[in-house]
Amino acid sequence: MTHARTFSSALAFAVGSAVLSVSCALAADSAPSPALADITQVAARLSTEAVGGTKAFEIVRSLTVEVGPRLAGSEGDARAVDWAAKKLAALGFENVRAEPVEVPHWERGKNAGTILSPWPQPVALTALGGSVASPPGGLEAEVLGVANLEALQKLDPALAKGKIVFVGNRMERKPDGSGYGAAVGVRGIGASEAAKKGAVGLLIRSVGTDSNRLPHTGAMRMTEGEPTVPAAALSAPDSDLLEAQLASGRAVRFRLELETKRFPNAPSANVIGEIPGRDAGTDREEFILLGAHLDSWDLGTGAIDDGAGCAIVIEAARRIGQLPPAERPRRTIRVVLFANEEFGLSGARAYAAAHKAELGRHVAAAEADFGSGRVRRIRTRINPAALPDFAKIAEITKPLGVEFSSSNDSGGGADLSPLAPDNVPVIGFDQDGTEYFDIHHSANDTLDKIDPKDLDQVVAAWTGVIYAVAAADLELRPAPAPPARE
Amino acid sequence: MTHARTFSSALAFAVGSAVLSVSCALAADSAPSPALADITQVAARLSTEAVGGTKAFEIVRSLTVEVGPRLAGSEGDARAVDWAAKKLAALGFENVRAEPVEVPHWERGKNAGTILSPWPQPVALTALGGSVASPPGGLEAEVLGVANLEALQKLDPALAKGKIVFVGNRMERKPDGSGYGAAVGVRGIGASEAAKKGAVGLLIRSVGTDSNRLPHTGAMRMTEGEPTVPAAALSAPDSDLLEAQLASGRAVRFRLELETKRFPNAPSANVIGEIPGRDAGTDREEFILLGAHLDSWDLGTGAIDDGAGCAIVIEAARRIGQLPPAERPRRTIRVVLFANEEFGLSGARAYAAAHKAELGRHVAAAEADFGSGRVRRIRTRINPAALPDFAKIAEITKPLGVEFSSSNDSGGGADLSPLAPDNVPVIGFDQDGTEYFDIHHSANDTLDKIDPKDLDQVVAAWTGVIYAVAAADLELRPAPAPPARE
Repeated sequence: MTHARTFSSALAFAVGSAVLSVSCALAADSAPSPALADITQVAARLSTEAVGGTKAFEIVRSLTVEVGPRLAGSEGDARAVDWAAKKLAALGFENVRAEPVEVPHWERGKNAGTILSPWPQPVALTALGGSVASPPGGLEAEVLGVANLEALQKLDPALAKGKIVFVGNRMERKPDGSGYGAAVGVRGIGASEAAKKGAVGLLIRSVGTDSNRLPHTGAMRMTEGEPTVPAAALSAPDSDLLEAQLASGRAVRFRLELETKRFPNAPSANVIGEIPGRDAGTDREEFILLGAHLDSWDLGTGAIDDGAGCAIVIEAARRIGQLPPAERPRRTIRVVLFANEEFGLSGARAYAAAHKAELGRHVAAAEADFGSGRVRRIRTRINPAALPDFAKIAEITKPLGVEFSSSNDSGGGADLSPLAPDNVPVIGFDQDGTEYFDIHHSANDTLDKIDPKDLDQVVAAWTGVIYAVAAADLELRPAPAPPARE
Repeated sequence: MTHARTFSSALAFAVGSAVLSVSCALAADSAPSPALADITQVAARLSTEAVGGTKAFEIVRSLTVEVGPRLAGSEGDARAVDWAAKKLAALGFENVRAEPVEVPHWERGKNAGTILSPWPQPVALTALGGSVASPPGGLEAEVLGVANLEALQKLDPALAKGKIVFVGNRMERKPDGSGYGAAVGVRGIGASEAAKKGAVGLLIRSVGTDSNRLPHTGAMRMTEGEPTVPAAALSAPDSDLLEAQLASGRAVRFRLELETKRFPNAPSANVIGEIPGRDAGTDREEFILLGAHLDSWDLGTGAIDDGAGCAIVIEAARRIGQLPPAERPRRTIRVVLFANEEFGLSGARAYAAAHKAELGRHVAAAEADFGSGRVRRIRTRINPAALPDFAKIAEITKPLGVEFSSSNDSGGGADLSPLAPDNVPVIGFDQDGTEYFDIHHSANDTLDKIDPKDLDQVVAAWTGVIYAVAAADLELRPAPAPPARE
């Protein structure tokens, strides 16, 4: 993958986009912004129109059908960058560019697991993202079951030595997806904890809420120089099976084969497109960043994670860009499709570094990375003085069934975290995640899981609120520090 | 696999069981049967007790955990025969035996599919049962999409020549599962129809109602001497993906790799156990056959197809066998766990042949092969003169939410079809199949899909009704001919 893309040569490319926005800062004075009441009237109209149908489903359809799996550093990732730049240009975005990001490159290869005794059966499993390979032909060992990460951390090394440790804790289903944080710890550090205890492998119950024979992958932490072991997630039914064999009291022997491969870092890109505001090109230009991530795991086609998010931010911005000149907001809306969210936020970090000088003019950021479920609540992390006016803006989403929370403690998405030191305000569109973790990071992440009407509702909430924030003089900066953990 | 089983040497073995039932026909005269009202009272009590909890879930748990996949002719099939004979003996059945059956032996091996162009993506597919292999390394060809089997049959060979034909029709979800019959035709004969048209491969949309990335297998017809082609089913989301690429109007090239293998026929067995009636061992002995099939497809652990059925018939019979001697019915209840239902009814045919002389004394047969959903309706195919009395028996299942249909047109299960020429009456317990085809023949056929309370309801309906039919003097023979097609 080289950075000399093949898409339309008419597209602007900038190695660091700061160059772009400064280089043409000579535009005319902007007119005063309209009153907030007038702005929310337009916002409400935009929102209502979006409920009637948007292009969002078509955008995610195109991405999943024409690109599909796009793990960071893979050939699919390179195709996704091309797809995104072409799509943004075709949809009328300006300043479309692919800003280079170096990403890790890891391949899953063949993954297999077999219970050898007491009752031989194959099981469905998949490597955790970044896992080292097993020895050729697989590793065979007895399985030791523990309840959760804490139990693994307290384990007597004499018991763990030479074993494959299985960690069985289950993720709880909750509408806000908060069961994930409680369950995901072992995926991140389980392999190094198991290695410290002298174990030879790690198996976990998939961090998911479904009961399909489709394991869920996800990144594990790989710390240079720290010991680790081959690590894989079993599907829920296969975890049940392993637990049932362990419960027999008989020794359970297991063969784990992971033909994973780690390659040198690869080039990828954050793909960016803008709907310039009336202040664009002046030194008053301010940005509202709408983010989603372009990469996906390799098992599915990345429909809900995060094709849906890409479609939401692209379509919300596009609809605002369709407004007649008189209604154009003053602030620039910048869509950023981040590289490699899944494997360590490479794109988010690269963006924050490349745009450091500009971050003080990022007046708000919002990320869509929670599937296609309906927006249930809007939450912010903004200058508290702006909350009353923001509440008036959020009001326009009431007909969509959205409530406004003034808790002002939104974490924002993972890709926004590198912006926090610069106090970039966050607007959080909290979606219904009841079924999100049935699908997330599994082969089941495909287009059919998206309800186009739900996606339209999300776009409607985004379009109205983002328009109003872009059009109003509302000062959302500086944001308070993010919560320690959402 | 040899036929010298390793299980308890205390078990009786007979090559043809007719030998057994004739050899000890010297028992005492039986007492007259009680009045039907008294019988239905006991039946109702049995049914109520079963609703409170049965061993059925534990039986299917044991089969899925301790044996798992058990495709005819496989090593798992041999272990299933051992498991079944030991389980029946342990649960108190008499005359437990494994009657030899020769079964086909086919292995799936590695199956893979890839869309090569216009937009390369791997797809989830699995070989149809019995499919020939692709050439080593796979076959590559352009895909031609057709709507359904009829369209394939009408296809101009000039268009099909050298292509992989994809048949896209969808199975409809219905509570009685009747969408299956309408959709399954192409699975059976599609490969030979495609071959006749000069195609080089067949892909079908899985015959199923789910949207998981788990393809559904199932037997295809293999007629000696007829041309055929490698044939596979895509999961529903992968069928959508292929259709979306075909809809682009661009040529879709595909690589299909099926490393299937056909081996010589292998030995297996029908496993049989009895709850002898009061007339057992006399020439008045009559049989009620309770059937299910012991084999499963290889992808799942055969929980709903047909571990659940095995558990239902074993547990219903066992509960009747627990009655005090005074309440023991006069007729013998014979549980038959058939070999190889999936791949051509080998066990059912072998049973009908081996027990030919006895079939005139088979006064009723019932088969459980439709998962673990609740019984919604009881339907028969019996001597119409017996319908009024049978209706009184069926009445006891009303508290379970079961209705009785006097349509008298039950097809019975597939394994009962070889008994039809001998006019063996059929009792059909029609279960709710709304979700059955989400799971059926896919890797998702695992224990967690069974609700133990539903399974208990099914056992309750069976136990009460089968007890009553076994205890009463009701003459159900001869059955009318089965409906041409249910």
